[in-house]
Amino acid sequence: MLEQLKAIVGDANVLTAADMAKYSHDWMNTESWTPLAVVRPASTEEVSAVVKLASANKTAVVPVSGNTGLCVGTSAEGAVMISLERMNKIREIRPEARIAVVEAGVVLSNLREAVDDHSLIFPLTFGAQGSAMIGGNLSTNAGGSNVLRYGNTRDLCLGLEVVLPNGEIMNIMSELHKDNSGYNLKHLFIGAEGTLGIITGAVLKLFPKPRAYATAMVAVKSLPAALDLLAKLQAATGGSVEAFEYMPRGFIDTHLKVVKGARAPFEEHYDVNILVEVGASSDALAPDGRPAVSVTLEGTLAALLECGDVLDAVIAQNEVQRREMWARREAAAEICMPFMPMVSADIAVPTDKMEAVLDMIDGEIRKIDPDPFVIIVAHLGDGNAHYAVKTANMTAERKDEVTEIIEDCVLKFGGSFSAEHGIGTYKLPSMARRKNKTALAAMRAIKQALDPQNIMNPGKVIPEERGSI
Amino acid sequence: MLEQLKAIVGDANVLTAADMAKYSHDWMNTESWTPLAVVRPASTEEVSAVVKLASANKTAVVPVSGNTGLCVGTSAEGAVMISLERMNKIREIRPEARIAVVEAGVVLSNLREAVDDHSLIFPLTFGAQGSAMIGGNLSTNAGGSNVLRYGNTRDLCLGLEVVLPNGEIMNIMSELHKDNSGYNLKHLFIGAEGTLGIITGAVLKLFPKPRAYATAMVAVKSLPAALDLLAKLQAATGGSVEAFEYMPRGFIDTHLKVVKGARAPFEEHYDVNILVEVGASSDALAPDGRPAVSVTLEGTLAALLECGDVLDAVIAQNEVQRREMWARREAAAEICMPFMPMVSADIAVPTDKMEAVLDMIDGEIRKIDPDPFVIIVAHLGDGNAHYAVKTANMTAERKDEVTEIIEDCVLKFGGSFSAEHGIGTYKLPSMARRKNKTALAAMRAIKQALDPQNIMNPGKVIPEERGSI
Repeated sequence: MLEQLKAIVGDANVLTAADMAKYSHDWMNTESWTPLAVVRPASTEEVSAVVKLASANKTAVVPVSGNTGLCVGTSAEGAVMISLERMNKIREIRPEARIAVVEAGVVLSNLREAVDDHSLIFPLTFGAQGSAMIGGNLSTNAGGSNVLRYGNTRDLCLGLEVVLPNGEIMNIMSELHKDNSGYNLKHLFIGAEGTLGIITGAVLKLFPKPRAYATAMVAVKSLPAALDLLAKLQAATGGSVEAFEYMPRGFIDTHLKVVKGARAPFEEHYDVNILVEVGASSDALAPDGRPAVSVTLEGTLAALLECGDVLDAVIAQNEVQRREMWARREAAAEICMPFMPMVSADIAVPTDKMEAVLDMIDGEIRKIDPDPFVIIVAHLGDGNAHYAVKTANMTAERKDEVTEIIEDCVLKFGGSFSAEHGIGTYKLPSMARRKNKTALAAMRAIKQALDPQNIMNPGKVIPEERGSI
Repeated sequence: MLEQLKAIVGDANVLTAADMAKYSHDWMNTESWTPLAVVRPASTEEVSAVVKLASANKTAVVPVSGNTGLCVGTSAEGAVMISLERMNKIREIRPEARIAVVEAGVVLSNLREAVDDHSLIFPLTFGAQGSAMIGGNLSTNAGGSNVLRYGNTRDLCLGLEVVLPNGEIMNIMSELHKDNSGYNLKHLFIGAEGTLGIITGAVLKLFPKPRAYATAMVAVKSLPAALDLLAKLQAATGGSVEAFEYMPRGFIDTHLKVVKGARAPFEEHYDVNILVEVGASSDALAPDGRPAVSVTLEGTLAALLECGDVLDAVIAQNEVQRREMWARREAAAEICMPFMPMVSADIAVPTDKMEAVLDMIDGEIRKIDPDPFVIIVAHLGDGNAHYAVKTANMTAERKDEVTEIIEDCVLKFGGSFSAEHGIGTYKLPSMARRKNKTALAAMRAIKQALDPQNIMNPGKVIPEERGSI
């Protein structure tokens, strides 16, 4: 089979043995595996040919792009890994139509830079954007810090090109904003983590680059007061809040301890710290000549300072200050590292239930350890919290116990055990015990229908049925 | 089976014979059929029981709500029709979370009125909203005039309750803005036109009611000039344009002829007439105390009048004038009626290709009839045109010929033969000859997997394979 793979992609692009090292473990280095080979096709046709060969040989294929996923979605023991890294062309940027046509291996930050030249943005943004690639962003429906305004990755995609498990190329590269011609396959393949096919290309939406940003760190009385601040800012700016990120006292303290040169956002320490950023989508200026959005942010904060809901606020006066605020937020993964192993939960609840669910989780975890170490950071505007916790004795059993506690609490509020990171293999147990059984059965039926040989990224997303192997 | 149905929903809610009259034809009265019975369940559990019974008897079931579809999606010869009309409860409106939880039989305009009391809107709006119901809106992924700002129906839905072809109830009634726990089934069932299951309930997104509207009729030099106006308005208002509706000269002329008391939008007659509406999502006021949005609209139009791109403009000074503008636009279906039969196409192209595709269609149709009668109205901001045309000799063959001409032109620009109306049975031939074959095969596999007996609204959306029955 190796020879046949070489015939398709060329000798240099079939990696084996030590050359596979960087493909043989996940981003967080929690698991490792040995693929049969790693192939690096240069075109959709080559991907198709590789998948057809694998299908004929009933051999598993595992697609990989930036490999920055947090749920071990690319484990590939004995499988042919298909790395999309050479499919890194931005095929087209059409500023007037506000679209970019890209291959799956384009690095997210490269796309962001390329469209910046046209005064446009591709809004998706998160810590790993210098490594993460569009194919993986789509396959995991990546979230990040701008979802509040622009939506998840699926909301940023108009069309797809996918190689199906039988090797056929499905071209649904639509540029259309309306298309009701049958089942919406685009949304099915987005977020399927490569288990239904390999995304090789996409038509992505671009947006006008905000004319100005107003960015601030704000200390607020409570989480409900923070949500009230968000609502007031949305009303005052016409829904232009781009980010609304919650960092509790523990996050700030840990950041100060772990990151060299880190500075506190305020002189005093507060419980509820919010990074807020508003993007001005209009050219409107205030009478004093500043962007209207800055004046609006200041005015809203000033009124809430007066009534006591806002306790303190610092507005970034320049790009350096803005960058420092963002660097603190984006250090979330980094500041967890020294405390590993932790249980890392990625939970979603209705936005107005965040305080209640965090309180409940805290109370329940203290029943097994009265002094847990916790790092929380939340996309508060989306109802999405990253909850990392370390208790005494972090054995596998203890981790399971803590995970179940968190899930119990989240489900009581109608929440999800996976907000933006996906399932991979890491959250298969949660999927098995928490996902609606009828929905799970429907997913199994769809997987079986599109991939009857179960060769396409097998063992991810959908847990094996109890009773089956 | 009738007795068993009565046992589930009660005698009064199993209709037969003449009582089925209003369920036995489509909205446009182009087709009629005789169901086995029409049942009117009052709850999701009753829907489930009816589907289980039908499944055991291998009898087709056809869901129907407002029955205002334009593609004959509810034909039900010999089938059990399940009317959702009694499931008309708004279960919950939660203003602070901006959601409504509704049953499938809620009439769209009733929901719009109910949330208005909370200064919120459910943005979906189109001519038939006084009859159309949420279940049908979701099943057809209805579009309408506000898609430009708020998206299609699928963008307005957070969660669903669905009765599957085996009668099981799938509860994915999420209120979450982020949920990456497996395949996105919500988007698969939305737009499936009841062929994969029956939507019985939904969690819908609500939006703040605009503080003010600025509405105008604008005569523009050309379609590219109209798109430039749209871009300038979006930049000036931060993307607050709610509607941007194109009515060419022929539409205005026909409207004047057909509708009693109709008035022309301008003293002169122009080729390119646009209804534009901007919603103020902020409280901003201009120095003279008027809503800033009105001043912005006036200013943008004034600048374009000066440079000659805009030829004329009338801004609504009050709600009566605004209503008159909308009434003209919403008379589109009415003014086609006297000219039936026509070929009614619902096409989408990339927004910047609208002029080219309309020109091409016009040229091609004139080759078979040098003087066709055409009524066009377009959601220009979405790239979606409703193109109704009557040529000499409107035989079935001629209609097919004209349809194929339109499809040929649309596909040359990467467009779709169904933008917002769906497929039903009316567009099965287009689906068979125009849809990507690999995508069609994937849809067939999914349908077969979820509905192996093919009892759920059979014969819609997915054309039979050539060679099969």
